[in-house]
Amino acid sequence: MKYDLCVIGGGWAGFNAAQRASKLGKKVCLIEDKEIGGTCLNRGCIPTKAWVAYSKQNYSFPDIQTKASQIIERLRQGMQFVLKSRAIDYINGKAKIVSCDTVRVGEDQEIKAKFILIATGSTPRELPDLKFDHQKINSTDDILSWEQLPKNLLIIGGGVIGCEFATIFKRLGVEVTILEIESQLLPGIDGQLSKKIAQVFQKAGIKIELQKKHGEIDLNNFEKILLSVGRKSSLDGLWEDSGYIRTEKDSIVVDHELKTNIPNIFAAGDCIGGYMLAHVASYEGELAVKNMFSEREKKDYSVVPVSIFTSPEIASVGISEEKTKLSVEEYRIATVNYLSIGMAHIFGDTQGFVKVIVGTRSGRILGANIIGLEATELVNIFSIMIKNNLTIQDLRKTIFAHPSISEIIAEVAKVLE
Amino acid sequence: MKYDLCVIGGGWAGFNAAQRASKLGKKVCLIEDKEIGGTCLNRGCIPTKAWVAYSKQNYSFPDIQTKASQIIERLRQGMQFVLKSRAIDYINGKAKIVSCDTVRVGEDQEIKAKFILIATGSTPRELPDLKFDHQKINSTDDILSWEQLPKNLLIIGGGVIGCEFATIFKRLGVEVTILEIESQLLPGIDGQLSKKIAQVFQKAGIKIELQKKHGEIDLNNFEKILLSVGRKSSLDGLWEDSGYIRTEKDSIVVDHELKTNIPNIFAAGDCIGGYMLAHVASYEGELAVKNMFSEREKKDYSVVPVSIFTSPEIASVGISEEKTKLSVEEYRIATVNYLSIGMAHIFGDTQGFVKVIVGTRSGRILGANIIGLEATELVNIFSIMIKNNLTIQDLRKTIFAHPSISEIIAEVAKVLE
Repeated sequence: MKYDLCVIGGGWAGFNAAQRASKLGKKVCLIEDKEIGGTCLNRGCIPTKAWVAYSKQNYSFPDIQTKASQIIERLRQGMQFVLKSRAIDYINGKAKIVSCDTVRVGEDQEIKAKFILIATGSTPRELPDLKFDHQKINSTDDILSWEQLPKNLLIIGGGVIGCEFATIFKRLGVEVTILEIESQLLPGIDGQLSKKIAQVFQKAGIKIELQKKHGEIDLNNFEKILLSVGRKSSLDGLWEDSGYIRTEKDSIVVDHELKTNIPNIFAAGDCIGGYMLAHVASYEGELAVKNMFSEREKKDYSVVPVSIFTSPEIASVGISEEKTKLSVEEYRIATVNYLSIGMAHIFGDTQGFVKVIVGTRSGRILGANIIGLEATELVNIFSIMIKNNLTIQDLRKTIFAHPSISEIIAEVAKVLE
Repeated sequence: MKYDLCVIGGGWAGFNAAQRASKLGKKVCLIEDKEIGGTCLNRGCIPTKAWVAYSKQNYSFPDIQTKASQIIERLRQGMQFVLKSRAIDYINGKAKIVSCDTVRVGEDQEIKAKFILIATGSTPRELPDLKFDHQKINSTDDILSWEQLPKNLLIIGGGVIGCEFATIFKRLGVEVTILEIESQLLPGIDGQLSKKIAQVFQKAGIKIELQKKHGEIDLNNFEKILLSVGRKSSLDGLWEDSGYIRTEKDSIVVDHELKTNIPNIFAAGDCIGGYMLAHVASYEGELAVKNMFSEREKKDYSVVPVSIFTSPEIASVGISEEKTKLSVEEYRIATVNYLSIGMAHIFGDTQGFVKVIVGTRSGRILGANIIGLEATELVNIFSIMIKNNLTIQDLRKTIFAHPSISEIIAEVAKVLE
């Protein structure tokens, strides 16, 4: 039997691609060499967010791990159920592309398919002079299976992952130091948000060292080190060493339709580099399938939300104040503090603000930068508005339910009046 | 001095109207005979939602009351600060309209104003044969100052307020019975939501008596009774008994611009009847001011969200399945369960669903009916989409941040593909 689509990788990109193809009536198989769910479910978003949530609720470290594992197991079962109910063949094994329509699994199983989607994800990146030893120098993968807490932890890399784990481990009583080579935590994020989270971290006792490399400090002072300096695409052994799929900087090169240099092989998710976010992977997986089997559509990253589960939470979409130079139009900025929102008082968490950038003449919402309660949920509202070119006037005429956290978005429109 | 606007009532309608007029450069005074903030802040949304939140966190009854009072006091101070910073004159006293441009406060203070806005709110309604004695038969106002919990409580009226207080008191260990004259709890709400909350209530041990009047049961079996059968406009002593402002069914009659029968006297909020919701009051207060001082605009209740802080939370906007007959177009229904959302698993609350009604041909979102986590926040997203005529296709192309609760809205679009 020849499949319409063979998906390699059961993470967010692959799983959503397989589902979509199946909805289009295509015969699909999905090959995964580890657990269904990929980085997001097993070693990324889900465990991290569970740890963030449970450390806030004062669970012990072992209890946090147990609870998180139970959730992961339940979600895996849910994904397996979806695959089954959609009649997608799931194959557990290591895939190798042996020709443009053949994938070998393990030693002897050969899969034939009209299209192949590579969605093999990524793994934690090392530094040229600092490698994981999985004892002292750890990746996020290692950390998730720690049996006990260290006395102190050095986090090398103050990006999203570094800041999330700083939040978690500080709450659990670990002494935390963050080392960041750039001049701010969360490089690329609006400077005001970054400054605010740095203040909160410092107040909580997290030590922050900016514009410093690991060579400049004594690593012997730390019991454990988390190296969180980004991720690299997972492509090992995916095709013959001689190579026929084009890569650049360790990631697969794709065109606007997510096609590789081989016309019937597509790629999506972390393995093509770029954002390396679960929701982008999901978008790409579905888009690749669309481009294989239905109308063609170019990839579009104009509105991609980013969310960071620190405490308070951070999220942003569209342009930040620093990037307003990139905007073609004049802009105004509106900032509303959570202090003005009744529901934030009820939840006892009034720190933070929502900062929105709006086109002066058009009224179009160009960007939202949020630090505070429900930042991720709020950013999704902005994503809808920005993607659909809604203006601040469109927002103004909407009645928001009271009391709610999202009322803060309605307040933004009032400020700009 | 003659004011541009004299607002009578410092609740949501009056406060927002005063602010808006002040932003337009108008000289405004605001008269309130009780506390700033009206029913919503002092005796309605805010204390109820605080009680809901704190009873969930297992605070004791006295602690819940103390914490709620502190929040109310803080929010009052915030409102007073806004009035001051906007140079709105705040007068504490009982207002009487003595002519079309004169309001008397107390015995001898006379306020002259070009426009008057009546925003005097509402009070709990009694039944013809069952009156508040504030001992056994209580209004929500009485309940908020209870010093101790009764052993059991009969709630007459299973609407929004009745269901919210049933949630609170059951959690606090009180035996609760709800009596509802209609055939479902929360009359007017989507039948599936109503059925679901009835199941949850029954499982929690709340007794529900439908299609029954209080005359049919023995009130002696109950230590306390909450009579929550609606609210009536507060108009007592607002003008001379001889009367010059037209009322109907105890509420002020207004035209499409919220004008009363006297051209420079407007009314907004609960005192004109209708929804009796804080966010509608706020909308009306602002609209009245717009119609007084800037461009004219007719009131529009086409997209008004409703939210109910039971557990799980309920919220809806647009049409429900029962009301699809009112829709001019053919429709499809998509239902997504919280069970499919990772973030709901992390929060340990996967009960409930989002049920969306979409025009078959247009793809327009016509209504959303939600029971589950963050229902109120989610309904605000639907309000924006419905108000701005977004379609399910517009929703489909938006990338939602993962993991989040609002991803459930993106799932709705997938279901309808």
